[in-house]
Amino acid sequence: MSNDNEQILKNTNAQILDEFNASVMFDKELYAQDIKGSMAHSQMLFEQGILSKEDKEAIHKGLLQVKEEIENGDFEFKIEHEDIHMAVESRLTEIIGDAGKRLHTARSRNDQVVTDFRLYVQEKTLSIKEQLKTLIQTFVDVASKHTTTLIPGMTHLQHAQPINFGYHMLAYANMFKRDYERFESSYTRNNYSPLGSAALAGTPHNINRESTSKQLGFDSPTLHAMDSVSDRDFALEILFNISTAMMHISRISEELVTWSSYEFQFVRMSDEYATTSSIMPQKKNPDVPELLRGKTGRVYGNLVSLFTVMKALPLAYNKDTQEDKEGVFDSVKTIEISLSILNEVIKTMIVNEQNMQNACKVGHLSATDLADYLVQKQNMPFRTAYYITKDVVATANRLNKDISELTIEEIRESNSQIDTIDEEILMHLDLKASMNARTSFGGTSTQQTQEQIEIFKDWLTNK
Amino acid sequence: MSNDNEQILKNTNAQILDEFNASVMFDKELYAQDIKGSMAHSQMLFEQGILSKEDKEAIHKGLLQVKEEIENGDFEFKIEHEDIHMAVESRLTEIIGDAGKRLHTARSRNDQVVTDFRLYVQEKTLSIKEQLKTLIQTFVDVASKHTTTLIPGMTHLQHAQPINFGYHMLAYANMFKRDYERFESSYTRNNYSPLGSAALAGTPHNINRESTSKQLGFDSPTLHAMDSVSDRDFALEILFNISTAMMHISRISEELVTWSSYEFQFVRMSDEYATTSSIMPQKKNPDVPELLRGKTGRVYGNLVSLFTVMKALPLAYNKDTQEDKEGVFDSVKTIEISLSILNEVIKTMIVNEQNMQNACKVGHLSATDLADYLVQKQNMPFRTAYYITKDVVATANRLNKDISELTIEEIRESNSQIDTIDEEILMHLDLKASMNARTSFGGTSTQQTQEQIEIFKDWLTNK
Amino acid sequence: MSNDNEQILKNTNAQILDEFNASVMFDKELYAQDIKGSMAHSQMLFEQGILSKEDKEAIHKGLLQVKEEIENGDFEFKIEHEDIHMAVESRLTEIIGDAGKRLHTARSRNDQVVTDFRLYVQEKTLSIKEQLKTLIQTFVDVASKHTTTLIPGMTHLQHAQPINFGYHMLAYANMFKRDYERFESSYTRNNYSPLGSAALAGTPHNINRESTSKQLGFDSPTLHAMDSVSDRDFALEILFNISTAMMHISRISEELVTWSSYEFQFVRMSDEYATTSSIMPQKKNPDVPELLRGKTGRVYGNLVSLFTVMKALPLAYNKDTQEDKEGVFDSVKTIEISLSILNEVIKTMIVNEQNMQNACKVGHLSATDLADYLVQKQNMPFRTAYYITKDVVATANRLNKDISELTIEEIRESNSQIDTIDEEILMHLDLKASMNARTSFGGTSTQQTQEQIEIFKDWLTNK
Amino acid sequence: MSNDNEQILKNTNAQILDEFNASVMFDKELYAQDIKGSMAHSQMLFEQGILSKEDKEAIHKGLLQVKEEIENGDFEFKIEHEDIHMAVESRLTEIIGDAGKRLHTARSRNDQVVTDFRLYVQEKTLSIKEQLKTLIQTFVDVASKHTTTLIPGMTHLQHAQPINFGYHMLAYANMFKRDYERFESSYTRNNYSPLGSAALAGTPHNINRESTSKQLGFDSPTLHAMDSVSDRDFALEILFNISTAMMHISRISEELVTWSSYEFQFVRMSDEYATTSSIMPQKKNPDVPELLRGKTGRVYGNLVSLFTVMKALPLAYNKDTQEDKEGVFDSVKTIEISLSILNEVIKTMIVNEQNMQNACKVGHLSATDLADYLVQKQNMPFRTAYYITKDVVATANRLNKDISELTIEEIRESNSQIDTIDEEILMHLDLKASMNARTSFGGTSTQQTQEQIEIFKDWLTNK
Repeated sequence: MSNDNEQILKNTNAQILDEFNASVMFDKELYAQDIKGSMAHSQMLFEQGILSKEDKEAIHKGLLQVKEEIENGDFEFKIEHEDIHMAVESRLTEIIGDAGKRLHTARSRNDQVVTDFRLYVQEKTLSIKEQLKTLIQTFVDVASKHTTTLIPGMTHLQHAQPINFGYHMLAYANMFKRDYERFESSYTRNNYSPLGSAALAGTPHNINRESTSKQLGFDSPTLHAMDSVSDRDFALEILFNISTAMMHISRISEELVTWSSYEFQFVRMSDEYATTSSIMPQKKNPDVPELLRGKTGRVYGNLVSLFTVMKALPLAYNKDTQEDKEGVFDSVKTIEISLSILNEVIKTMIVNEQNMQNACKVGHLSATDLADYLVQKQNMPFRTAYYITKDVVATANRLNKDISELTIEEIRESNSQIDTIDEEILMHLDLKASMNARTSFGGTSTQQTQEQIEIFKDWLTNK
Repeated sequence: MSNDNEQILKNTNAQILDEFNASVMFDKELYAQDIKGSMAHSQMLFEQGILSKEDKEAIHKGLLQVKEEIENGDFEFKIEHEDIHMAVESRLTEIIGDAGKRLHTARSRNDQVVTDFRLYVQEKTLSIKEQLKTLIQTFVDVASKHTTTLIPGMTHLQHAQPINFGYHMLAYANMFKRDYERFESSYTRNNYSPLGSAALAGTPHNINRESTSKQLGFDSPTLHAMDSVSDRDFALEILFNISTAMMHISRISEELVTWSSYEFQFVRMSDEYATTSSIMPQKKNPDVPELLRGKTGRVYGNLVSLFTVMKALPLAYNKDTQEDKEGVFDSVKTIEISLSILNEVIKTMIVNEQNMQNACKVGHLSATDLADYLVQKQNMPFRTAYYITKDVVATANRLNKDISELTIEEIRESNSQIDTIDEEILMHLDLKASMNARTSFGGTSTQQTQEQIEIFKDWLTNK
Repeated sequence: MSNDNEQILKNTNAQILDEFNASVMFDKELYAQDIKGSMAHSQMLFEQGILSKEDKEAIHKGLLQVKEEIENGDFEFKIEHEDIHMAVESRLTEIIGDAGKRLHTARSRNDQVVTDFRLYVQEKTLSIKEQLKTLIQTFVDVASKHTTTLIPGMTHLQHAQPINFGYHMLAYANMFKRDYERFESSYTRNNYSPLGSAALAGTPHNINRESTSKQLGFDSPTLHAMDSVSDRDFALEILFNISTAMMHISRISEELVTWSSYEFQFVRMSDEYATTSSIMPQKKNPDVPELLRGKTGRVYGNLVSLFTVMKALPLAYNKDTQEDKEGVFDSVKTIEISLSILNEVIKTMIVNEQNMQNACKVGHLSATDLADYLVQKQNMPFRTAYYITKDVVATANRLNKDISELTIEEIRESNSQIDTIDEEILMHLDLKASMNARTSFGGTSTQQTQEQIEIFKDWLTNK
Repeated sequence: MSNDNEQILKNTNAQILDEFNASVMFDKELYAQDIKGSMAHSQMLFEQGILSKEDKEAIHKGLLQVKEEIENGDFEFKIEHEDIHMAVESRLTEIIGDAGKRLHTARSRNDQVVTDFRLYVQEKTLSIKEQLKTLIQTFVDVASKHTTTLIPGMTHLQHAQPINFGYHMLAYANMFKRDYERFESSYTRNNYSPLGSAALAGTPHNINRESTSKQLGFDSPTLHAMDSVSDRDFALEILFNISTAMMHISRISEELVTWSSYEFQFVRMSDEYATTSSIMPQKKNPDVPELLRGKTGRVYGNLVSLFTVMKALPLAYNKDTQEDKEGVFDSVKTIEISLSILNEVIKTMIVNEQNMQNACKVGHLSATDLADYLVQKQNMPFRTAYYITKDVVATANRLNKDISELTIEEIRESNSQIDTIDEEILMHLDLKASMNARTSFGGTSTQQTQEQIEIFKDWLTNK
């Protein structure tokens, strides 16, 4: 190989390597947190007498200018900056000169990067919580309108018992409430400031970690420097919380897709949230819930990725952890847009009450009510009542009727043990009555549903 | 095919199918929870006047007998029982007759199974918490003995700064403390009783869910029946918490393996926790930490499994969720034995203080102290101090010395900007002094380490 | 603590540790492979003059006796044996004395264990292939009966175009054929014998690895001892192949569940493959396909587990890899029973042709045919034809008809660009004609479907 | 809310939704494949008389112009194009008018997208194969230089037996060769053209799928339209192959990190591939291998993501599968850069032969040779020889020597069963002799290593 070619190859390799090592192209996402962290750090250095007033003021002014440049799109991120921290610092030094170099006193990239990342995770945790609240409100609103709308409660995708559609919606309100609580809990558990941990073991400088912690909105400094620079539990927690929330989204999405089929026709996506086919002009596809469902994959994957990265890493910092951010950014963006979209989908979906109600007449949905009646009124063991009910269902099937449509004679003839059953049983087999009979705490009766709505309204007011 | 052969084939198929459907061979793990749940349920039915005193007493006596039979090994679990719930109920009915059949009143297998499973998860959450406390205590004990034992603090598996070994141990105490807090938090978040949710929508029976909730040690009943029978968040949470704890275990295990190598020789596993080779008699292998590290795989896998199962499941109950238990049982057993083993490994490991200390003399571990000195005492910008330090390190390398072994002249000659540097710098370059200089909150100095130990002692006392 | 208590604690710890380290309770699954491997190894040692004839014969006789004992249930596996290899060897030595100790000459547990495991994976690969063939045959059989049975071809769970049900079944035959090919390919790629690799670097004994390779049915010995004892690619491959096959199973399972709903009623599970509710006597639940779908979780999890274990393992052997087997055993058993069950489910399902056909009349399934006609016969750009078709669909919707039920006048009036369209268009809008029009290679027309069936029959004959 | 505000909100929602639905911002990666596919499709339409010569030529010219615009950066991708396919088609129509609209004849976005994606996967499979070859060549080159360089062969990160460093390098050549074979195999298995499958069931147009298949470099058309539009096995396969290769990369990376530590000092990364600390000027960190190791996480995650997406998807096309591409793009880019970087790392690493050799003198690496000698020359059972060897090792430990440094008397006195052992044993205990004694096929002796190098050279020549 000629010398020229060798040089070219070397340059190419160097460029590939820079690209490989650099994180600036994705961690620029953290510019605001980085600047915020540096403002707090320099303020503290000044308070502790480590930095002069002039230097501190120059740094603050310079950092604000860098921020403005970035937000105005005037800042060119370059691979050679390696990461957002170097990008900001080197621009700062360009602007304010030597004072910029003093900013890194008593700080290492190890604690700086983890502080920025933690700030991001904490901020996003708060905003996702807000979105969850909005979504819960939407489910509660839809529920409020449908506390008497019958729909078949399903198990195994088979009609099981008549419930009201509002009640079904509240099941999701409960799921997203648990998600909310998980984000709330991980926020508190991780609200500690790693800044001042330095490279891995603290610093001989007379710093005040309480000050930076407070400035940045953390509860207090972390307890242990070495742990702090290597800890990514907070990132795993947000990935897990997002995965669980996304799993819940995949469940309502699956139901929306099924309910949108010609066979079900329980709901219809509003026109914005359904798309047409490039080849079949007659179709309206529930693309949006399908895509929501599909996005579960990426957030699960991101969780697995970080768990893999962290496995068997020795203390304290290793470059492997540079791989911690992209997945978190991606999962955060995914849940943000998914919550926002799902909220609109639920708000705008067209509910076909008639079809839901008609469906209830198929499948002997009040069969359990017969069994329960026999147990309650005739003091039968449940297992006996169960077998008698089977006979009545068989009669209904033979007559091509739903159990709710049988006459008292047809019922009595089904099994000799109930040949004198009281006429009031007919009332129990009525579908709406059946739904309303489930008055146990957490049950589907309209009255219970309304009470649950009230509980949610209170919760939403107080959060 | 002859009729006989057809019959045989049919029977074979039936048997395979039974095996496929049945969960009794693994969910028998839940026998105690199932019996506990049935005791509470029947007690409540009696209190509400749904069950007679005689029936209730017969049921209680029968259930206790079943429990005894299981615990004495006198109970034969059979595939045809399908699951633990049927196994217990059918044996109960054998023993006490018809009263046994009344037990299932106002209950469905859907709420029964999820109650039992939740009881299991909650109980195990408490016992894992206790094990974590024990382990933290062990790390604190080892730390207490080594607050002045020098060891190279590493980043990138390269010597970075001198720390004390006790401090290194405390990093793990911090990790396992966070694990403890996660288990604590998930316990509280999920301590609600699903019993009484029935199949999916509650029950018309006049039950009292507060009563069963209280009897079973839950805080209160869950809010929504449909959500309750389909919710597996509590199982995902314990799987996540275990995965995170196991990830931490994999990190200390990796370090133990590395430290046990001939090259490091920082620690030695005690003889019980190292094994010999079937072909190489001279070897002592750190099998135990390796196996601990390897077990991370299975708990990650179990988390992925359940997330996969739950993806896109429509409400309310689907048979898919029968797949929720084995992974949880496996992860629970894995973390239980791993915590127990790790505790002994840490307790019994032989620490080679001399080798740790010798290692500190390699790698210019006090280089940062020089830089920090220049910043603090000579008010240099950090970046300038950094480059000067590089020159001093170069001098040391040239002389084949560690930076802590340089004379004041050798230092002064390294760079013209420090040619009159005060002799006190030598003190800063001393390794122990360097370690003790890091007095910032959370830093490695012996005094800081001791304060952290006190914090942990308090925490352990109050938990 | 008293000395007695200390001793008890020590014993307890020792027992827990034995349990932790031992693999015999699960790797006894490999007893047949272990004995087969030892037979081959000792035969080779004899051929090479390393083992006397008497010793070889004693070993063979002894091994066969051990095998018989295991298969008759006369062999007690104990934790102290640690693994199946020690269990067999120590029993062998009990039976035949010193000769048993010579068996381990020129072999290490490292190559022994990986040989046994590979034999297992290869044997299972072959038997899974056979099961896949049986399943493909079943899909082809069902397809053969339904090449003219109309069913709506769906995209987005929306009716798209009329296809025949046989064609739909063949889609799955294609998936499982690819699975077959993957197992076939991994079998070939991994059919090499690691036996003779010894601990990690080969052996000074004059062994003949060709001989053992041939005896064990491998193609030839592996190329590199160190790689051989640390390679688990073959295990990852079977886990991946099983995951992909299981993913296909989850897709047909999802369809079976949906098709079994009251709303669809396209198929019904035969009575053995549907179960009833413990509380709702009227229900028939598609539990079996649901459980098949749920089992996807565990096989995905097992793949993740092994990938996690293998990440960043240094060469050559580490105890972490003891964690390689349970997941493979579990995935193998899962796919075996799943393939067997699915085969019966498909064979015995009741197809409701009438409902499938009726469903085709909803959704303007032949709309694309109108567009295609306009392109083909009237040389219109596709995008123009697409918009005209939309107008015709609108007409049909207004008249509450399916597009296949429109009169020629109704069509002509829909859009001025087709106001003289030929009457032959009616033929194209006919549903069966529409299905049969798709004669492109791989299309749904009955004739194409039949040709594909022939291709599969040939394939099945030649495999 | 005022009407204005409502409109703004509506627009915002619409924009978010467009962003959510659109894939153009990532699937533009497929522009070349999309244009290639459209060239082939239009050529075939022309050959079949479906498209006029003029139209075909206009389309070809237009497509080439679009391609040029994209490659010159003159093409603005916009969210409203939704995907790359619409982006290209709409620009084409802008350029050439109505003829552009004819391009979509007999094609659907469903088969178009999967054709483009498959072309991408196949092309990348070929280029990754080439990179693997280059990397194997590099390992073989390094191996060739080190067939006599002693290094301790390790198990459990403990010295086990002396091997040569070239041999160690060849272990990786073997791993990457298997990776090569997996890519080769998946290429062949998936080299079928889905083009012409149309939406899901083929097309009534008289197309020729053989023609497009041939033009695009596929072996033949896929067999079944419905399967073709829903099949993503090819994407799972490349994700799996990449994950396995990346796992291998993580293993060599782990070794490089360990070997770079002060304690080992077996290798040193060349200066370009090691970086310095922002706070510790004396450090040289093996960042590059660490980052390589960390990147394992993302490719594992991408595999999990797609498996999750595909689970339980009904046929044929669902929008969920839009989530199939980003993970594949990311994994492909990750393996490309990783293979490229690793190749340079291995090529440029500095091997410290002296340190490797010195390390061999620690740990009694030739102990197995003593055992083997006793078995071979004195016909002892292996287990007996094993215990005698243990005694000799004990002697060496007592004398603070390595077993290779013992005198004949010291050996003889270790155990009475060898008190007359021949002096030739000393030769066997020599470290180099020990390494060279392992002459079994695949063993570490220099001669075996050289033969393996020859096998690889042949393989590289013939691939």
